[in-house]
Amino acid sequence: MMGMTLAQVAERVGGRVLGDPEVVITGIGSLEEAGPGDITFLSHPRYARLARTTRASAVLARERIEGTEVQVIQVSNPDWAFALIAEVFAPAPPRFAPGIHELAVVAEDVSVGEGASIQALSVVEGNARIGDRTLVYPQVYIGHRAEIGCDCRIYPRVVIRERCVIGNRVIIHSGAVIGSDGFGYVTLEGEHHKIPQVGRVVIEDDVEIGANCAIDRARSGETRVRRGTKIDNLVQIGHNCDIGEDCIIVGQCGLSGSTTLEDHVVLGGQVGLADHIRIGAGAQVAAKSGVARDMPAGAVYRGNPATDKNRFARQQVAVRRLPRIIEQLRELSKRVERLESAAHDSKRS
Amino acid sequence: MMGMTLAQVAERVGGRVLGDPEVVITGIGSLEEAGPGDITFLSHPRYARLARTTRASAVLARERIEGTEVQVIQVSNPDWAFALIAEVFAPAPPRFAPGIHELAVVAEDVSVGEGASIQALSVVEGNARIGDRTLVYPQVYIGHRAEIGCDCRIYPRVVIRERCVIGNRVIIHSGAVIGSDGFGYVTLEGEHHKIPQVGRVVIEDDVEIGANCAIDRARSGETRVRRGTKIDNLVQIGHNCDIGEDCIIVGQCGLSGSTTLEDHVVLGGQVGLADHIRIGAGAQVAAKSGVARDMPAGAVYRGNPATDKNRFARQQVAVRRLPRIIEQLRELSKRVERLESAAHDSKRS
Amino acid sequence: MMGMTLAQVAERVGGRVLGDPEVVITGIGSLEEAGPGDITFLSHPRYARLARTTRASAVLARERIEGTEVQVIQVSNPDWAFALIAEVFAPAPPRFAPGIHELAVVAEDVSVGEGASIQALSVVEGNARIGDRTLVYPQVYIGHRAEIGCDCRIYPRVVIRERCVIGNRVIIHSGAVIGSDGFGYVTLEGEHHKIPQVGRVVIEDDVEIGANCAIDRARSGETRVRRGTKIDNLVQIGHNCDIGEDCIIVGQCGLSGSTTLEDHVVLGGQVGLADHIRIGAGAQVAAKSGVARDMPAGAVYRGNPATDKNRFARQQVAVRRLPRIIEQLRELSKRVERLESAAHDSKRS
Repeated sequence: MMGMTLAQVAERVGGRVLGDPEVVITGIGSLEEAGPGDITFLSHPRYARLARTTRASAVLARERIEGTEVQVIQVSNPDWAFALIAEVFAPAPPRFAPGIHELAVVAEDVSVGEGASIQALSVVEGNARIGDRTLVYPQVYIGHRAEIGCDCRIYPRVVIRERCVIGNRVIIHSGAVIGSDGFGYVTLEGEHHKIPQVGRVVIEDDVEIGANCAIDRARSGETRVRRGTKIDNLVQIGHNCDIGEDCIIVGQCGLSGSTTLEDHVVLGGQVGLADHIRIGAGAQVAAKSGVARDMPAGAVYRGNPATDKNRFARQQVAVRRLPRIIEQLRELSKRVERLESAAHDSKRS
Repeated sequence: MMGMTLAQVAERVGGRVLGDPEVVITGIGSLEEAGPGDITFLSHPRYARLARTTRASAVLARERIEGTEVQVIQVSNPDWAFALIAEVFAPAPPRFAPGIHELAVVAEDVSVGEGASIQALSVVEGNARIGDRTLVYPQVYIGHRAEIGCDCRIYPRVVIRERCVIGNRVIIHSGAVIGSDGFGYVTLEGEHHKIPQVGRVVIEDDVEIGANCAIDRARSGETRVRRGTKIDNLVQIGHNCDIGEDCIIVGQCGLSGSTTLEDHVVLGGQVGLADHIRIGAGAQVAAKSGVARDMPAGAVYRGNPATDKNRFARQQVAVRRLPRIIEQLRELSKRVERLESAAHDSKRS
Repeated sequence: MMGMTLAQVAERVGGRVLGDPEVVITGIGSLEEAGPGDITFLSHPRYARLARTTRASAVLARERIEGTEVQVIQVSNPDWAFALIAEVFAPAPPRFAPGIHELAVVAEDVSVGEGASIQALSVVEGNARIGDRTLVYPQVYIGHRAEIGCDCRIYPRVVIRERCVIGNRVIIHSGAVIGSDGFGYVTLEGEHHKIPQVGRVVIEDDVEIGANCAIDRARSGETRVRRGTKIDNLVQIGHNCDIGEDCIIVGQCGLSGSTTLEDHVVLGGQVGLADHIRIGAGAQVAAKSGVARDMPAGAVYRGNPATDKNRFARQQVAVRRLPRIIEQLRELSKRVERLESAAHDSKRS
């Protein structure tokens, strides 16, 4: 692990040193954990109080931080700048030799690309294809006729079932299951009969899929996750879903069958989507919401059933005031009673 | 892949050709994805607009579809008819030779039924039993004294822990864990002490269990899933639960310990059930609901805490009107004030 | 399996026999499942009706049970007493020989403690360390430079990624993934660029982690789960979280990145926590709640957005009465109208 001067750091991230360019950086850390020699970052002015007490030698930030003498490298996007520097100081990732490990179980007719590595105890079934430089960690399962593109990283214990297709530069984390059967039955006289799930899953380029996700194969045709979409851990994607490009799906979301996300949709954690609905481009759904109907492009929804987030906020305010409203109603009712009784009296008099 | 005339298709599904019985079908697809030569299906009149623009050569439907010339085979249950035809045109499922793969790790005293297949890198521990014609995919773990019935399909990377019992024709998808310890502790002076979980899990005939589910073994006695119940992906079933026959449990549901589902219960996605409750036969819980009390047979609940779905709907309507109600109350209050002040004036005069 | 007299049971659990001390116990079971010869327990007076009809020979309970002749052993904590007895009568857990199985794949420079067992088809990568008497079940993956303490139980198909650290007496259930990448991207012109996740996960002593959990490694620094915390199945813990000592996290909870739980926090099932928040010591969150802000120590919250549970209860009561309130408001409005019209008439007259 080498050192870099702040001047060198600034050059690498396209920033400007506010302080001493000769200070040497030898590591990275969060605002709280970084120590002398480390560089850290201030992603949001909200955390400025942490920046004032950090023990780091330097901070990547949008501007000078008041109330501290810490060195600053001024950048327009501190998160991204930190990502660039993290790569420099990161512990070297584990290396795996290219080729097929002697304890991998690879069928004879599998096509393995140049520089690809298939590690110990992985299984690659007949007629599967593995692209150039793709790394298959140990204990992975790749089914018959599955196709994996180039430069992928398939972590330990991923399952990719038969005939599924994975693009280039795809990252799949441990425990994810790609191509399990969709959940489909026909109920006759109270018994559920399985509908064969004969489709496949297609994962396009530059997708990342989190640990222990489950993405079901289509009943017929395809379940598709399009280019650049990022999926967090423990997400469920039902059969025949069509997920657009550059979407963000946070942990533990559940998408029922045949639902469509257009491009750039963002789903917060633990969101649930009904089947056969369409979420318009750029729409955002707040964490824990339940969406049962189509959402227009660009909409921001919250709640269950989900509604426009401003409307939801107004309803929440109203619900919080509800006990007080009931009191007011009771009081008003008494005042009306008094008026009625006075009116009655005056009539009689 | 062979072809079938519409007359042959109609015979197979017990339907009636409305159109040309000589048209030849060579594949299947969804309304959107099917092309010339394919047959598709219209599961619900709601999707009739898709049927009018489908490129398929024929549609399985309940009745003639207006506004299109597409061939129709009239059937009473289009989903089921499609399932029957899908089997004909489906890509052949992967085949595995019977017997024990040379790289499977099977203890000497394991009993393996006729025609059963135990694939590469699976582990079967001492005294376990595998029934006839059961297919154990690669990388499965089957614990000591576990018993698997006949004609099961155990997908890659399933774990079945010691002493658990699986019936016949059970399908368990990749990543599911059967028989992990129940979540039970006794807290003494702030520290949690583990209660040994010495029971087992029993899965009866014709059950299907989705990818990455977790079904915990009983503290003592059994966690049981009864005949014909179908469980989607990422479902959690706590220790000592008793799940009835022919239930449907949709993805990401969570059942706390010792809860009972009677027969034919349906739980929507992401439902949570408290511990020690009983859900009556045929009851239905809408997606994302939280149930903390017993539910009577046949009830349909929604919300958190869950309540009768009609009552829930009325409450939802009321909540949506709440901001308007607050305005009305304010206005009414002003009118009462005016009346009071008028009454006061008239008294004085 | 031996037998014990009630006198012997009472001695072992520190209780008092209310009945015949010579009765012989040969097994255990729940109130519903136990039969003659079994001992069971009454964890809560709520279940006394089950105790009155149990077929068990004896019950561990806080006091004599009215309306039944069943033998009772009086104890202050029936759950804990049952745990102690369950250990006696439990089926012997599977035994594994110490040492490295001939079909495990263990790098040459791995350090394996005395009495540790590494079972078939497990992979332990370079420079990893396994403590004394730790049991690594079959098909486990332990990454480069990972460190596992003493007396741990790592169940089949656990993944522990590179450089993660596991303490002593830790139990990790099947399918759990420790050290998958945190979910972090920088979005530039609509495309999401991965931020390297170069930190690690630290699991302290006496932690238990449920089946199919996912605990992400830190962006930099650590994701930490402190001593004695117990985590149920299918829980997601984001990058850089800091979970205190002796916490309880029930199934399917999701914690976003950089969130802190102080000691003794309890999260009910399916709870979601936003990122960068702090939950005070001893706080409790009811099942299915969503917490978006800091919680003070000792607070008990419920709902989404979560609020004080008493306040939540009042709001719930109010919401349930809402349809009736709307009626009352309408009626009151009519009465005010009548008063106004009377006032108008009297003015004119």
